[in-house]
Amino acid sequence: MIEQEYIRKIREQFELFGFAPIETRAVEPLTHLLKKGETDKEIYLLRRLQAEEGSGDSELGLHFDLTVPLARYVAQNQSDLQFPFKRYQIQKVWRGERPQEGRYREFYQADIDVIGQGSLPLYFDGEMPILLHAVMSSLPIPPVTIMVNNRKLMEGFYRGLGIEDIQTVLRIVDKLSKIGPEEVKAQLVKTVGVSESVAEKCLELAKIQQPDASFEADVRALGVEHPLLEEGIAELAFVMKMLERLPKGSAVANLSIARGLDYYTGTVYEGVLEGHESLGSVCSGGRYDNLIEGGRHKYPGVGVSIGLTRILVPFFAKGLLPSVRNTPTCVLVALVSEEGREMSMEVAESLRTRGIAAEVYHLPQKFGKQIRYAERKGIPYVWFPGVESDQEHEVRDIRSGEQTTAEAATWNPPEEDKISVGLMGE
Amino acid sequence: MIEQEYIRKIREQFELFGFAPIETRAVEPLTHLLKKGETDKEIYLLRRLQAEEGSGDSELGLHFDLTVPLARYVAQNQSDLQFPFKRYQIQKVWRGERPQEGRYREFYQADIDVIGQGSLPLYFDGEMPILLHAVMSSLPIPPVTIMVNNRKLMEGFYRGLGIEDIQTVLRIVDKLSKIGPEEVKAQLVKTVGVSESVAEKCLELAKIQQPDASFEADVRALGVEHPLLEEGIAELAFVMKMLERLPKGSAVANLSIARGLDYYTGTVYEGVLEGHESLGSVCSGGRYDNLIEGGRHKYPGVGVSIGLTRILVPFFAKGLLPSVRNTPTCVLVALVSEEGREMSMEVAESLRTRGIAAEVYHLPQKFGKQIRYAERKGIPYVWFPGVESDQEHEVRDIRSGEQTTAEAATWNPPEEDKISVGLMGE
Repeated sequence: MIEQEYIRKIREQFELFGFAPIETRAVEPLTHLLKKGETDKEIYLLRRLQAEEGSGDSELGLHFDLTVPLARYVAQNQSDLQFPFKRYQIQKVWRGERPQEGRYREFYQADIDVIGQGSLPLYFDGEMPILLHAVMSSLPIPPVTIMVNNRKLMEGFYRGLGIEDIQTVLRIVDKLSKIGPEEVKAQLVKTVGVSESVAEKCLELAKIQQPDASFEADVRALGVEHPLLEEGIAELAFVMKMLERLPKGSAVANLSIARGLDYYTGTVYEGVLEGHESLGSVCSGGRYDNLIEGGRHKYPGVGVSIGLTRILVPFFAKGLLPSVRNTPTCVLVALVSEEGREMSMEVAESLRTRGIAAEVYHLPQKFGKQIRYAERKGIPYVWFPGVESDQEHEVRDIRSGEQTTAEAATWNPPEEDKISVGLMGE
Repeated sequence: MIEQEYIRKIREQFELFGFAPIETRAVEPLTHLLKKGETDKEIYLLRRLQAEEGSGDSELGLHFDLTVPLARYVAQNQSDLQFPFKRYQIQKVWRGERPQEGRYREFYQADIDVIGQGSLPLYFDGEMPILLHAVMSSLPIPPVTIMVNNRKLMEGFYRGLGIEDIQTVLRIVDKLSKIGPEEVKAQLVKTVGVSESVAEKCLELAKIQQPDASFEADVRALGVEHPLLEEGIAELAFVMKMLERLPKGSAVANLSIARGLDYYTGTVYEGVLEGHESLGSVCSGGRYDNLIEGGRHKYPGVGVSIGLTRILVPFFAKGLLPSVRNTPTCVLVALVSEEGREMSMEVAESLRTRGIAAEVYHLPQKFGKQIRYAERKGIPYVWFPGVESDQEHEVRDIRSGEQTTAEAATWNPPEEDKISVGLMGE
């Protein structure tokens, strides 16, 4: 019920920003799944139990994220879509990993992406953290800090230092918060073969954190020059300028963020929950200019993914989620006698038409037993129908014991008890 | 977007009746999936791409329905659940079938079930069609006719005729609407080896259809007697009595309905859409007293499953679904100039806080181009921010061309245009 409510709120924000929902099939051809990087270990393959040997079934696998399926979807439907194409997608994904806190074999991701045809304005790179901020602050969780960086900036900086093995440097620098600065430096010298002073420069860049466009001065102070670095600085400055409208500290330029995936080409994002940094990033994403193979056109994209399960499961385990009763039912309509069943069902139906979730007790047992059923399920109200012609209906709040006369057509519980689809207050 | 809206409405009704949502993992042990009948051909098995030979991964498969996973879930969590346990579940399931109209390899099911501990009152058998009726009539589809029968009634009748191979008779009779009465009779004589007159009796029973408890007189007129038949008649009469509150014709006792699955033990249901009978049953279910292996207790259950995809896909193909615009966006906020971006973003934010979905156009292009973007996406309004200090904002309905001055904090579109989460009128 809680997960459902989180999904509803995420969906609501996505739609308020004009993103349309799609779902793609859970199953994709293995050849497509394997195209995009280092995920091959984690894929689950499928075969039909009764498939004949050599029946020509092409190899299929369960999707492990929602970006790779989106790339297939856009390439396949390019002539039917309107660009920039803005979609969101909330689905389960599967990875054959060893399960541990924050990592599961089946889990929910909630993704938003914008795909352009030919080109995609930088505006959307700035809109992503604004949307993420709106989504995350609509949920009952701690504030999220969104860290932003730019791959061109990093690559340009490294190239300006004469480094050529960019991927390896990115991979090492990305571990800064895990292994610490000394170890990053040591690995850069040992693995990439750069000098102590070049490693030191890389580390200096990675240490830069600013809540606004002032990161630029910090980068320039390091005295490195390269055209790609200029491009990256301009892009990140544009994005950070747009993010000034967010509350101070919700978005930070953090020049150590690299993201593991090879397909990012510009802006990259990573979000952590304040006070729960050990959970790792709970949302992440970036700009990918070359992921989608569209034939005649280029289809650059930018997007983020919220690791919903990664947030909910540890929070649930720690008792940090809002508590909800374990049924949507607001009113249990008691069953006075077998003859009174019709009346009880009418009361329930009348309540439901006004959005009040109601169930009829199933047997004409003693009221004490019916009330205990409501208590065990956490149903707040028990309704006692007046079955004689001159008898009034009564409704009892079983938390306070207060009992009053009532009519099914007009009685209303306080809003916080009248929960049907939504489970938590707005 | 349409599917999403149907799911929202189904969910709303399920919750109004006091059913709580759960989701189970898509993957179950093969041994469990294979326990319940004749579905083995259709299961997809999983293996990890990089699994070592003989790594001891037990065999896993994707679930092919939501009832078998529920049985596992209840058996596993019996000490934590409150009974009668009322849950709904809306998830995708997978079957390795040959795809054709109404049959897909990945599709949505929407299930509701009630599980008792020890026993489960017949009341719930009567509540299922009432709930189904409420759900189906909340959706923009033709009226559903819910056909109800009882396995005990059928089995008792056949036993009263001296027949022992009940399963085969059920299977043949269930095909009545497909193969016709003559063929049913011929198969009964040929396959089960009964006499012409016994086959005729079976056919007479199967022909009985009544909108209320009057089916009982029709059955008794056939002059067959058996204790199990009596039990079945009493159960079906109780259910049909409860269904009298539904509009005439929405529920019918149809004594040919048998349902293929072996695990049903009493009431069975099948629903068809008026005018679309060729789609087959769009919702179905029944009572299963012995499906769940709970150890110390028995866990009888009753439930129904709505074949959501089976309804939506053919209806979509035939153009019978309500049309929706292909974006949730209600207002496109135009971008006057790069300097005006801040103002445009403020307008959009202000609209969103009041539940009006809004997006900012991404580049300061000519208004004609921005309006055409709105037209292509089906966005009904374009907002022109007043960027000069004395300039008023204007909003244009691009369908009528009408343009008026407006303020972001107070302007409201008509309710039918103000769609964020919901896409169709209530």
